[in-house]
Amino acid sequence: MDLGQVPLRFSRLSMFPFFDLAHYAASVMSLKEQRGSVEVSCQSPIACWFSAMLYCFGGSVLSSMMLGEPPVGFLANTTNILLASSIWYLVFYCPHDLAYRCVSFLPLRLMVAGMKEVTRTWKITGGVMHAHSHYKNAWLIMIAVGWARGAGGGLISNFEQLVRGVWRPESNELLNMSYPVKVSLAGAVLFTLQHVHYLPIAKHNLVFFYTVFLVVIKVTMMLTKSKASPFAPIETLLGRLLFGWQPAPSKGKGEAKVSSNGTSSISDRTSSGENTDSIKKRQAKKTE
Amino acid sequence: MDLGQVPLRFSRLSMFPFFDLAHYAASVMSLKEQRGSVEVSCQSPIACWFSAMLYCFGGSVLSSMMLGEPPVGFLANTTNILLASSIWYLVFYCPHDLAYRCVSFLPLRLMVAGMKEVTRTWKITGGVMHAHSHYKNAWLIMIAVGWARGAGGGLISNFEQLVRGVWRPESNELLNMSYPVKVSLAGAVLFTLQHVHYLPIAKHNLVFFYTVFLVVIKVTMMLTKSKASPFAPIETLLGRLLFGWQPAPSKGKGEAKVSSNGTSSISDRTSSGENTDSIKKRQAKKTE
Amino acid sequence: MDLGQVPLRFSRLSMFPFFDLAHYAASVMSLKEQRGSVEVSCQSPIACWFSAMLYCFGGSVLSSMMLGEPPVGFLANTTNILLASSIWYLVFYCPHDLAYRCVSFLPLRLMVAGMKEVTRTWKITGGVMHAHSHYKNAWLIMIAVGWARGAGGGLISNFEQLVRGVWRPESNELLNMSYPVKVSLAGAVLFTLQHVHYLPIAKHNLVFFYTVFLVVIKVTMMLTKSKASPFAPIETLLGRLLFGWQPAPSKGKGEAKVSSNGTSSISDRTSSGENTDSIKKRQAKKTE
Repeated sequence: MDLGQVPLRFSRLSMFPFFDLAHYAASVMSLKEQRGSVEVSCQSPIACWFSAMLYCFGGSVLSSMMLGEPPVGFLANTTNILLASSIWYLVFYCPHDLAYRCVSFLPLRLMVAGMKEVTRTWKITGGVMHAHSHYKNAWLIMIAVGWARGAGGGLISNFEQLVRGVWRPESNELLNMSYPVKVSLAGAVLFTLQHVHYLPIAKHNLVFFYTVFLVVIKVTMMLTKSKASPFAPIETLLGRLLFGWQPAPSKGKGEAKVSSNGTSSISDRTSSGENTDSIKKRQAKKTE
Repeated sequence: MDLGQVPLRFSRLSMFPFFDLAHYAASVMSLKEQRGSVEVSCQSPIACWFSAMLYCFGGSVLSSMMLGEPPVGFLANTTNILLASSIWYLVFYCPHDLAYRCVSFLPLRLMVAGMKEVTRTWKITGGVMHAHSHYKNAWLIMIAVGWARGAGGGLISNFEQLVRGVWRPESNELLNMSYPVKVSLAGAVLFTLQHVHYLPIAKHNLVFFYTVFLVVIKVTMMLTKSKASPFAPIETLLGRLLFGWQPAPSKGKGEAKVSSNGTSSISDRTSSGENTDSIKKRQAKKTE
Repeated sequence: MDLGQVPLRFSRLSMFPFFDLAHYAASVMSLKEQRGSVEVSCQSPIACWFSAMLYCFGGSVLSSMMLGEPPVGFLANTTNILLASSIWYLVFYCPHDLAYRCVSFLPLRLMVAGMKEVTRTWKITGGVMHAHSHYKNAWLIMIAVGWARGAGGGLISNFEQLVRGVWRPESNELLNMSYPVKVSLAGAVLFTLQHVHYLPIAKHNLVFFYTVFLVVIKVTMMLTKSKASPFAPIETLLGRLLFGWQPAPSKGKGEAKVSSNGTSSISDRTSSGENTDSIKKRQAKKTE
């Protein structure tokens, strides 16, 4: 097999059963790890199921709404819904938590997480192409829809939490962007630039290299339990150049805190969370 | 008249003026009985009117949004809006509360409530058929839209309350399903199964028997002031079979409490409501 | 030049670059004056940018959603987005706050505010016509869409605030209507009546006189720093006639307080704000 053919063949991979399954498994696992979600699963299986569907298909729901299409459209794909529902059922209600413990086994968890990252690329390119079929050359819409599709439920986490009776208005994925949301935005920008031919690279190559980047970073982050965003240096640079962030030590710490905090995809933070505290402290400083 | 013709004739009943009027009256009455709504009606008649419209046409708004159609579509039916607005005006602003007291008279209230239940069947079948016209054989969408149309404003109660300045994130109709929401879901499932020919029963017979069931249960519940859901035994059975609910006495009480609590259609609960308390207690038990 | 031609020529004015620019400048300025928005601009430029876009294009987003069209449609107009983004960048991140201070200079600010009011008329007529192209003769939808387009971000202020991590459910623009929201509603009613030929006046005359009214009132309010709504007498009259408001002295004060409070377009009020207090006081009075 010719090595140069790898990206092309890779870009023709079908997501359908296996990668989709891994995406559902990783999403439902991260829902189960949210505080309070086990109680919700006991109290109201329907709210729990709906929440799980928003974790699995949140990107599809959000991008449909953005393009004025039926947000329930994802329900039309009955096979995928049944797959996702089975995994939700196994992870939440399997006796002795067997399914959850099984997927929590580190090598399996790494594989599932890696495969989930592969689906992210497919979603972003799908979103960009879908937006392009509605609006020719509206590159801002292409970026927005690709981002929404790729970042999945992250961007609607406030409303996903509301389904489970949790409401944390003081934080959202625009105020404190997590790593998956950031990397999806970067991907959406790249694939849009490629699509409008500003980026001199073949699509299958971009798909290949972006996916490899996603998987490698994700696996590294899981193995080292590091929560530092790989974008932190670029962000600081851009922040200083464009938005006048001060390189003062106290400020720098504050920024580091926020970015180290933002890596969990849809995280339930306490109402009196540190983010609000740090904002209040900054306000206090300014008014002094 | 042939007795066998009753269901067929019944299924051809027109909802237009009288049943619709009863639905508006029952909806606006239940809005007026919400805590704080009389104050809102004094402070801002527009917010109160909008809230009343969400009570009357909430199912239509929600199902339109789900299918990507204009949510303001219900405003195109000027006659119905004028009818609903007149009833809203009479119930809220009639001197000496005459209209409200009049409809509160028990026999009249029973009739109005019974007629409102009849409109529920028509809405559910309408929703199922409407979804079918968009998506062939997507039975999940048919159930979802039928449910949304039938359960009316219940499912969007959080946002309806927001119009009146009330926000209760700790509870919603998915977490603590009320009886009308449950019975609408059951109806949506039944009518969808009938529509895709899994249920060997003629549509007009199903319409007839489901409506009779709705009206009888509603009137019984109003007369006995019972708030016990008639679905409680089935729910407990399903909960034990599928979701591993424990038949422990303390747990059993907790469930009964929730279901006895959930009968009011869009109820304003206090922030420190018993639902949250009972959840917290359970969490406390689990962490012990 | 013939004086009778003024309204006709005026109604053919193009909003594109200058009036639009003034609208963006006035909107971004009022965002910057919200409490906490400067902190958000430091913490997350993306959340701040999104918030600014909701201020500038909120009416377009809301009216698109109401008509079932893609809410991201406004992003397709790249030139306008770039203009609005430049102004957002200058106002928030210009060194030494130069741009903000410059536009704050009273004569310039008056001009910008006046020109912003001119765009309001164009938006309302645009909304009415757009709704008319979807629904013939549905005058309620024409009013609603014209209102949504004209009142801009005011009606979605709760959700705009949520982007910045602020949540004030106890108040919204339906409960405590601000002056711009009221005047947009009045304009939407007038232009709809004109459109369905109930108002015997040529469109360009109505456009001219309504705009003059808007600009004169706005400039007067800014010069006198008065926050009294010019609609207060009409509102009190209508309130007494239709909704049984009592002309009691204490009540009268309460009303005046609310209307004097409601003039800022999208204002962040404190959670323990006076509005809620005054409502509580009234409730207390009623229950006594």
